[in-house]
Amino acid sequence: MKRPNQLTLSTLPGIPLINKGDDLAEIIYRAALENEFTFEDGDVLVLAQKIVSKAEGRLVNLTTVTPSVEAVELAEYLGKRSELVELILNESSEILRTRPGTIIVQHKAGHVCANAGIDHSNVKGDWGEDADWVLLLPEDSDKSAAQIRKALEEKTGKQLAVLIIDSLGRAWRNGVLGTAIGLAGMPGLIDMRGAHDMNNYQLRVTTIAAADELAAAASLMMGQANEGTPVVHVRGFPYELREGTVTELIRDKEKDLFR
Amino acid sequence: MKRPNQLTLSTLPGIPLINKGDDLAEIIYRAALENEFTFEDGDVLVLAQKIVSKAEGRLVNLTTVTPSVEAVELAEYLGKRSELVELILNESSEILRTRPGTIIVQHKAGHVCANAGIDHSNVKGDWGEDADWVLLLPEDSDKSAAQIRKALEEKTGKQLAVLIIDSLGRAWRNGVLGTAIGLAGMPGLIDMRGAHDMNNYQLRVTTIAAADELAAAASLMMGQANEGTPVVHVRGFPYELREGTVTELIRDKEKDLFR
Repeated sequence: MKRPNQLTLSTLPGIPLINKGDDLAEIIYRAALENEFTFEDGDVLVLAQKIVSKAEGRLVNLTTVTPSVEAVELAEYLGKRSELVELILNESSEILRTRPGTIIVQHKAGHVCANAGIDHSNVKGDWGEDADWVLLLPEDSDKSAAQIRKALEEKTGKQLAVLIIDSLGRAWRNGVLGTAIGLAGMPGLIDMRGAHDMNNYQLRVTTIAAADELAAAASLMMGQANEGTPVVHVRGFPYELREGTVTELIRDKEKDLFR
Repeated sequence: MKRPNQLTLSTLPGIPLINKGDDLAEIIYRAALENEFTFEDGDVLVLAQKIVSKAEGRLVNLTTVTPSVEAVELAEYLGKRSELVELILNESSEILRTRPGTIIVQHKAGHVCANAGIDHSNVKGDWGEDADWVLLLPEDSDKSAAQIRKALEEKTGKQLAVLIIDSLGRAWRNGVLGTAIGLAGMPGLIDMRGAHDMNNYQLRVTTIAAADELAAAASLMMGQANEGTPVVHVRGFPYELREGTVTELIRDKEKDLFR
């Protein structure tokens, strides 16, 4: 495949605040029509995790959570609400680091992140009540992406990919970075094993985190605060689309030198 | 500032193989003219580290390197050439992890990466001789970016930014990711402290790694192997340009839980 020479990322205007049960594919499709966005084979729709979680009813009111003894003890050390810590523990497969104010875990889906990806901001529209509401990551972000992709492909008749992203911290470097947490119809990793460079020298770099690179690009356009642009339309993704899963991007525990 | 709603990344054709002493700003400017690329205030030019290093004469022939006793011993454990290990040690401020086949260090410039960013691929054009040649990161990538930016601004009369990127591995996730190693005229981090979300809830995420997000986006367009597209022109970078440095992105050692 000849690589495209241009990548275009466009924020899709007109996405309303999302509530439980909302049909995201229909909302995205309608917003695209209204704003004269077109769909072509190979386009990728990138969705902020928040709208997927909200549509799937992953909002939790902390006053409904009963913390375990473990959560209460850990919450005291962390300086966090015990109900929130209970949810973090429920969502995690392993605690990697704790410090007062900070808990880094491996989320059940494999992603290493603070607070198991549980979010306080942009969660609830009711001024003053929102301190009790938090938003969990989708149960299965690959599955969420697959459902939205299928519905969008049916509506548009085009071969599309869907990528769900969140802003995650990382080791060694400051700032959060848009990162893939679920995908459908596109590669997570690109395998370059066997490829040769311009001088016919076999490449040592064997895999490219293509879905994370696109997640970072789309995140740039979504911003973080009050922009309200949780959907980005991508044209010109330079790798061939295929069936994929975000688990391609998760390093096996035994191969990880930094856990 | 109203955020732009579209980001466009275009690979610049016609960049030749780069040699020591080449004037990158002039080469980029000429390629842009020949290919009818325009420059506007706020455009960012993203350069692959390899062309900057080559222009700065950072190619080293391993047969000219005399390894220290430490390098010889470590090389035996790693299963790498002792001359290469000598260079890795010279380029590093600290060794973080070693395993047979793998050495993760903090480069003098602050970046945590394998092999101190020293590269074997795409290094030398002479089939058969290239196994002895390696390429080091630029001495000071911020300074390199600043020089290229200044020259491009003089040629074009526009306010531009320059970002130098490399493909680095990371903890917890597979695959390399385009990452900022030097910049000029743009922010490394975006500070959101004090910003509020759509529900007027103060954001917990305080900093966005904007330069790394753009690095990842541009890396997607450069690819890794034989595409020969080491320069990407970016229009629509959604944050205000300012003077910046890549060190904004480097986490202080004492604040890092994963070293």
